[in-house]
Amino acid sequence: MPADTALADVAASLRSGETRPTPYVESLRTRSEDIEPEIHALLEEPDRWGRLQREAGALEACFDDPAARPPLYGVPVGVKDIFHVDGFPTRAGSDLPSEALTGSEAAAVRALRNAGALVLGKTVTTEFAYFEPGPTRNPHDTDHTPGGSSSGSAAAVAAGLCPLALGSQTIGSVIRPAAFCGVVGLKPTYGRIPIDGVLPVAPSVDHVGCFTRDVAGARLAASVLYDHWRPDSTIEAPVLGVPEGPYLEQADDEGLEGFENHVERLERAGYDVRRVDLLGDVEAVNDRHDRLVAVETALSHSELFDEYGEHYAEATAALIREGHAVGVGELCAARTGRGALREEVERTMDEEGLDVWICPGAPGPAPEGIDDTGDPVMNLPWTHCGLPAVALPASTTEGGLPLGLQCVSRFGSDERLLSWAEEIAEALAGVDGPSV
Amino acid sequence: MPADTALADVAASLRSGETRPTPYVESLRTRSEDIEPEIHALLEEPDRWGRLQREAGALEACFDDPAARPPLYGVPVGVKDIFHVDGFPTRAGSDLPSEALTGSEAAAVRALRNAGALVLGKTVTTEFAYFEPGPTRNPHDTDHTPGGSSSGSAAAVAAGLCPLALGSQTIGSVIRPAAFCGVVGLKPTYGRIPIDGVLPVAPSVDHVGCFTRDVAGARLAASVLYDHWRPDSTIEAPVLGVPEGPYLEQADDEGLEGFENHVERLERAGYDVRRVDLLGDVEAVNDRHDRLVAVETALSHSELFDEYGEHYAEATAALIREGHAVGVGELCAARTGRGALREEVERTMDEEGLDVWICPGAPGPAPEGIDDTGDPVMNLPWTHCGLPAVALPASTTEGGLPLGLQCVSRFGSDERLLSWAEEIAEALAGVDGPSV
Repeated sequence: MPADTALADVAASLRSGETRPTPYVESLRTRSEDIEPEIHALLEEPDRWGRLQREAGALEACFDDPAARPPLYGVPVGVKDIFHVDGFPTRAGSDLPSEALTGSEAAAVRALRNAGALVLGKTVTTEFAYFEPGPTRNPHDTDHTPGGSSSGSAAAVAAGLCPLALGSQTIGSVIRPAAFCGVVGLKPTYGRIPIDGVLPVAPSVDHVGCFTRDVAGARLAASVLYDHWRPDSTIEAPVLGVPEGPYLEQADDEGLEGFENHVERLERAGYDVRRVDLLGDVEAVNDRHDRLVAVETALSHSELFDEYGEHYAEATAALIREGHAVGVGELCAARTGRGALREEVERTMDEEGLDVWICPGAPGPAPEGIDDTGDPVMNLPWTHCGLPAVALPASTTEGGLPLGLQCVSRFGSDERLLSWAEEIAEALAGVDGPSV
Repeated sequence: MPADTALADVAASLRSGETRPTPYVESLRTRSEDIEPEIHALLEEPDRWGRLQREAGALEACFDDPAARPPLYGVPVGVKDIFHVDGFPTRAGSDLPSEALTGSEAAAVRALRNAGALVLGKTVTTEFAYFEPGPTRNPHDTDHTPGGSSSGSAAAVAAGLCPLALGSQTIGSVIRPAAFCGVVGLKPTYGRIPIDGVLPVAPSVDHVGCFTRDVAGARLAASVLYDHWRPDSTIEAPVLGVPEGPYLEQADDEGLEGFENHVERLERAGYDVRRVDLLGDVEAVNDRHDRLVAVETALSHSELFDEYGEHYAEATAALIREGHAVGVGELCAARTGRGALREEVERTMDEEGLDVWICPGAPGPAPEGIDDTGDPVMNLPWTHCGLPAVALPASTTEGGLPLGLQCVSRFGSDERLLSWAEEIAEALAGVDGPSV
């Protein structure tokens, strides 16, 4: 089985016994030796492959009977280094001692392990999941950023180092790197994947998410990660909405051109696509979200920053100082604003008969250089109001970089959104060759 | 078995089969009919006793084998009405519609149910566990407050309506009503009883706690409620410290006189009691804690207050408005202050060779009237820094009101503190008759 096989196929092959976990781990090792030295998606671990072989061997010994094998039997997963994982230090891309960042294993990691997954290792994150970048490079062009903050998780899946990786999104840290790296990213409805055991950034807008190579993989991962997963049997095609106005105009020329091409292909495939004004006040939403993140980051870090302030990168320290200067009344208003925006977006969907918003996953392709992880502005409003979002690889620029399409739906409708996203991905692939 | 039998004896009798759950529930019903109309500890429920008899009967049918009976088999418990309990609305002593206050069943309630407990019902709380009182009266003298905010839970246990009740403490809402009502109150180390499913007041200082009639009962409840309970086998007598200075001077004359009597009895019983200066800056600690509570309450209620502000009692609304006016930097400093105070208290214990601080559980006996739940100032510093505290009934005033002794120990030492508190309670009882 090739190292870059998609999650659902990997899981099926391992569960059926067609592939055993130990040779699959070996294939990932070979892939990693080839590509990881250029990508730097993973944090170093002295005996990674020895450990994984032992764990894979132990699984094989435990689950002789294929029928007893759990859904992610033997699947190695990457875990963003802001999740606590038993046996691994948490460093969060920072210079803080790992003793300062201890905690119980994240519920999401525990859920994956209970489903038979193995931990491939920690993946590179920007410092405390904000903007100070790590060493990771974009597998499609190593001169470009993979995006952030879940840089290593997106790059690891894109590079075929593992079929599934965990990330998190507080502004645009799952959907943007997924778009930049040409993989599927899932940012669930706020709260639907438990966040316990993940270092908080801004708890009222922090989301656990994941990366896979296709939507079927995202659905399989979601069925394990969600607290209450309800299988969906949607068959009707969704009505798609394009959120016209200042929000969309934040995309750059290359991004907009690509997006219009995606829209055109979906229309040709038979989708009803409606252009609707939305987010006319996106600047106010952006400001409110940025302030909310500043304040809640300051609160999350109050004790750590007091003790280790000089270890923080300047951008993160500035964010925290900005947060200190805000009044609590403004914070309360910002939190209340989340629900108000959600109502506005869903009311517009009702009025216009929309099922799914489609929009660019990032303003354009991944910027050149790795000092800047790119702009999360296309993701921010959806994060702010907690709506579920999926990034789909939709096309490739002339420069060979992926462009991702972002699909967003109603609060709590994650199962249906994934069904629709899978059809949309198939439609995009069918009309214009296998882009997904 | 009399309705006012203490928890450990109740549990032993039910588990052995000496008493069956159904007649025990019946004895509580009789007790409740006698006394509840004067006390108002419980929220009304139309068919409470029919439901409890059915639940008790179902338990009896399930656990025919005494060896299989869980530790709290058939024990009815009172639950403060800020805990979510499946099948009961959450009103939190407020005028808000219960639809505004929904949530998953509290982890603490779930733990008690898993251990075989039955829910007697919701108990009266002050509005949102702050100061606006409910209708509950002190069972020792119904002209007096039972304290708050866990008013109904303390009164229910004191009145023999149930042998165990859940409460919570953000300033002094477990230890103070326990002291006023002459029962044992346990406020654990911060975080040791999970708080999920409890309406937040000020999350960085919110604690789940419980009320019982003796320390053995508190230990039994703790062994079920704590996430990780480690049985203790302490035998050495603790060195006791009296925190002299402005903190202690907050007690009133009657409270101080009673406390000096408790100290004297403990010295006569052979305890090494050392008077040590502590909390010279108690006024600053009080201010910081009050501001922290104001801000975090404002944050916890940001969406509810925005929608239902006019339903809030004036005291609670004023607290929230005070919180809005605070800067986030001050909140961060207040949170950091918790750890600094904890270090100061524990360093003093090291330097002076102390194991347990003893101090009054409240400034004096329960004040007259039920419009004011009394002053939490004797509890505040320990809540602020998250140290475990136990209230012990220690004496009775000439007016017939209980005075409670508060015992406090190191962060995380709850098991040992309970062992010591049990000895201290026995010593107090032995020297001066059975006060516990």
